[in-house]
Amino acid sequence: MTNGTVKAAYQGEPGAFSDMAARAMLGPQASPTAYRTFEDVFRAVSEEEAACAVVPIENSLAGSVLKNYDLLIEHDLTILGEIHLKIIHNLIAPRGVKLSDVRTVYSHPVALAQCERFLRANPRISIKEAYDTAGSVKMVVENGRGDEAAVASRSAAEIYDARIIVEGIEDNPRNYTRFLLLALPNHPLEIPESGKPVARKTSLVFSFKNRAGALFRALAAFALRDIDLTKIESRPIEGRPWEYMFYLDLVGDSQGPNVRRALDHLAEMAENIRVLGCYPSASKVAEE
Amino acid sequence: MTNGTVKAAYQGEPGAFSDMAARAMLGPQASPTAYRTFEDVFRAVSEEEAACAVVPIENSLAGSVLKNYDLLIEHDLTILGEIHLKIIHNLIAPRGVKLSDVRTVYSHPVALAQCERFLRANPRISIKEAYDTAGSVKMVVENGRGDEAAVASRSAAEIYDARIIVEGIEDNPRNYTRFLLLALPNHPLEIPESGKPVARKTSLVFSFKNRAGALFRALAAFALRDIDLTKIESRPIEGRPWEYMFYLDLVGDSQGPNVRRALDHLAEMAENIRVLGCYPSASKVAEE
Repeated sequence: MTNGTVKAAYQGEPGAFSDMAARAMLGPQASPTAYRTFEDVFRAVSEEEAACAVVPIENSLAGSVLKNYDLLIEHDLTILGEIHLKIIHNLIAPRGVKLSDVRTVYSHPVALAQCERFLRANPRISIKEAYDTAGSVKMVVENGRGDEAAVASRSAAEIYDARIIVEGIEDNPRNYTRFLLLALPNHPLEIPESGKPVARKTSLVFSFKNRAGALFRALAAFALRDIDLTKIESRPIEGRPWEYMFYLDLVGDSQGPNVRRALDHLAEMAENIRVLGCYPSASKVAEE
Repeated sequence: MTNGTVKAAYQGEPGAFSDMAARAMLGPQASPTAYRTFEDVFRAVSEEEAACAVVPIENSLAGSVLKNYDLLIEHDLTILGEIHLKIIHNLIAPRGVKLSDVRTVYSHPVALAQCERFLRANPRISIKEAYDTAGSVKMVVENGRGDEAAVASRSAAEIYDARIIVEGIEDNPRNYTRFLLLALPNHPLEIPESGKPVARKTSLVFSFKNRAGALFRALAAFALRDIDLTKIESRPIEGRPWEYMFYLDLVGDSQGPNVRRALDHLAEMAENIRVLGCYPSASKVAEE
């Protein structure tokens, strides 16, 4: 794959779903750059080592990537965009290896969990967890044994010149991951836009002193203005056991009068609020 | 440690925090029994191989144990109780091993993450993830090398006759895990009760057709009746990308008129509702 000039940090190895998401979001200008951990990815953008980052925030089967919710708080990055990537898992091995040869399969634990039915139907294959899907392909190719395989994307097979033995081994085909594009505020990035008008979304995080009905009143700021919430996530507040901060995604422009008034209303009740970004929705066509 | 007659399934190895939580909740009647995975724990109780289970549902720093939220849906168990266990992590090694000898430390990834400051201050120690805290102590004792240690509870050190080299190495001392006691409905278990009257809590899960304001209206059923919500968690609905089911914990008795009316009100809007249990609160003294 060719690379452009915009360095986009992602977690994993070349061919990881995050690599594919970065290319899909940024187009030919993308130069996706692999980092080992999500912490490294956020740090690279914060320290201007990379222009932007592409990280998974949620999978439609496994749920939220909690680590990245926490890192959004710890770093001062802004969300510039989102994408829903369809996840297809394949059994991949070095050339010449047949399904009947495979005794060990490596992949990220979430990928392995999403292929449970296939793996149960092939009980002679033992399962080993690894830190990345594409990295597992890289490893089994480097090992060069005749009895190892990995679960990863088609791109990973191509990049490491390995072969797909069985295609689409995931249990549930309605498997999508939502990725976020992140950069420093006032970044100079230009994001390619699709031709058709899309609704904008706003993401925010807030907390309040815990008392009966507090979340209900916070949501009222949006519900009373007919603002559609697409996601709510709660995370613990460090040092305050059993108190939470709440992340919301909503359909609307943070600069539009309706959302602006809702945020002002929320500010009356909240301890603190931070808008994490306002960006074109990946899925909803603008209705206004 | 002596064991009673009530077989309580837990994930991990003897000395795991779940083992300690089972003893704390059930008293001398407890016979905590180790299983390798949370799936195995739920299955053991569902198939009446064990009388009950004790599983972590949430840590005050790391957040929800999502796997166990999902297993609550997949199995027909009821919540009989909860406990908040203070988590203290220790660096533990076979007798004779000093801190300066240690080159590798094993533990559960969450435990290792909670001791980041200590581990960063000791950079010659490399970190290896394992499936269980107490199981790591067992392993380093069995290995019998002079340069390995584990991060686990005091109990784990005692059970495997290992030594605590450094006590309380967690970053944040306000570290608690909430455990649930689960059994089949109509179980014959008797739970020891503390003398003082405590408020009861009710846990439930529900879903609704996604439309603007739906969560707000669902929470209204409780807020309009002054019912205090202590936790909300959302999990994806399989096969319906970006739709969620919601878990709520609230203070109140599911058999009391106020909560009963709130549940009836919620039923008017929800696609389905399931009460997961009603049990004595671990922390709140009854105010009624």
